[in-house]
Amino acid sequence: MTVILSDYLLEKRQLINEQLKHYVRDYTAPGRLQDAMLYSIEAGGKRLRPILLIATAEAFGAKVDKTMAVACGLEMIHTYSLIHDDLPAMDNDDFRRGLPTSHRRFDEATAILAGDALLTLSSEIIVNDQELNDRERVFLIQELSRASGASGMVEGQMQDMLSEDKQIPLEELENIHKKKTGKLLNFSIIAGAFLGNASNEKFDEMKKMGEALGLIFQIQDDILDVTGDAEKIGKPVGSDEGNRKSTYPQLLGLEGAQEQMESYVETAQAALKNAGVNQTILSELIHYLSSRDH
Amino acid sequence: MTVILSDYLLEKRQLINEQLKHYVRDYTAPGRLQDAMLYSIEAGGKRLRPILLIATAEAFGAKVDKTMAVACGLEMIHTYSLIHDDLPAMDNDDFRRGLPTSHRRFDEATAILAGDALLTLSSEIIVNDQELNDRERVFLIQELSRASGASGMVEGQMQDMLSEDKQIPLEELENIHKKKTGKLLNFSIIAGAFLGNASNEKFDEMKKMGEALGLIFQIQDDILDVTGDAEKIGKPVGSDEGNRKSTYPQLLGLEGAQEQMESYVETAQAALKNAGVNQTILSELIHYLSSRDH
Repeated sequence: MTVILSDYLLEKRQLINEQLKHYVRDYTAPGRLQDAMLYSIEAGGKRLRPILLIATAEAFGAKVDKTMAVACGLEMIHTYSLIHDDLPAMDNDDFRRGLPTSHRRFDEATAILAGDALLTLSSEIIVNDQELNDRERVFLIQELSRASGASGMVEGQMQDMLSEDKQIPLEELENIHKKKTGKLLNFSIIAGAFLGNASNEKFDEMKKMGEALGLIFQIQDDILDVTGDAEKIGKPVGSDEGNRKSTYPQLLGLEGAQEQMESYVETAQAALKNAGVNQTILSELIHYLSSRDH
Repeated sequence: MTVILSDYLLEKRQLINEQLKHYVRDYTAPGRLQDAMLYSIEAGGKRLRPILLIATAEAFGAKVDKTMAVACGLEMIHTYSLIHDDLPAMDNDDFRRGLPTSHRRFDEATAILAGDALLTLSSEIIVNDQELNDRERVFLIQELSRASGASGMVEGQMQDMLSEDKQIPLEELENIHKKKTGKLLNFSIIAGAFLGNASNEKFDEMKKMGEALGLIFQIQDDILDVTGDAEKIGKPVGSDEGNRKSTYPQLLGLEGAQEQMESYVETAQAALKNAGVNQTILSELIHYLSSRDH
């Protein structure tokens, strides 16, 4: 990773972390529910989605202030989905990022409610944000709810669970990933381009980039599950095999998965170039996502 | 119940039931998640919240078309909260309205996801509704998210769980009910008055009415748990005592609880009169809520 990118990631991550805490504290009262919301919000993470959103908006010349509510709302949705996915009835994970999961630290009921509350709060902060006008608020909730609901992330999680213990073809695997992780990553790019007032043509190129990015992210995730270092990833490696999930390396071999990813990297870089915006950070982010080790 | 009211309830319930199914089918793809969403949506219920919303809007002269998205979004939030509240980690209920609860009919993971998807869909249909302009969409999501999230319904559910097996004073009990059930009932009235373009003064009166209505609803719920007919209610009576929950009859005696409710009925009727709108249906609804047997 270049110094420019690592500085950028650090700066934005701190900004997002601070703002996330402010939002939770401003909109909720002290107590167990707030504790559980803050616990998962403060458990860290790369803040990849909000950073992609901010980087895209900035590439189009938007001010970061304009992006904060939707960037944090997006991260709240990601966080709630992790809390619910970790539950005993779902993936039954005891640890995430080296810390006990919400239902282990608190209890299952609290974890369910903290997830529900974060999902609700994500809309609340967007529609109340003073930096956005009503048209912007509405567009962002339209896109975010579509990306995260029953035709997006939640449906992807459902299909992912139904495909466990099954061999599924590559096409179906991609379809699941596009919903489960792709749509939210894609939203980062769409929302950023929208807030940067991208023209229709540029918006469409960024959309292509966002789609490729989602697949890059997922293939690298699958590859890391085979080749990664458990300590860096913060969860045991080989868990996909244990869960008998279909993965890219399993369907294409490790080398085939790498090649597939490289072709998506080319797609993403080409789309970014066609959009003709200030590319440095975004281009480096694509590279980083395809070579990250955790 | 008068014939006028029972006809009104029947007509609106059918309208809401039809529209709810349309929304779920229009916004989601066939599959297990959609099945689970439809299962809970079709499990029935009085549709009290959306009917209150529509009745209020109509009392102020609004067209019913203008209310359908938010009325259905509100009912989706109520439905998701029941699905999650019924989970083993929460109230652990096997039946609701005489049917197996979502996690019994499907499984826990599906029930959690169906709840998440309904919560997300509630925003999605409101911000996409063609009958509403952006200002209206934004206002409705602002109020609905506040009423249903970590300073409203979800927080109320959290506090309700924390107060189990404890004797709590009346003030705390009311505070919990105001959040857990009151805010969403209150939203029905606020949203209806807003869509009917109520003046500030009338809006404030309707707000008072909504608050009283929430308490009426809860006291009657507690009373029915003592005096009610399990078959009519669709759940076992005496379950509050079994759960060792604090209730109005327990804190005030059955007669005291009745009197308390009557005083809220007077408050609600007075506020409605002060608002000076077409009162027939709303006034009958207040009466119905305070005397319902299920």
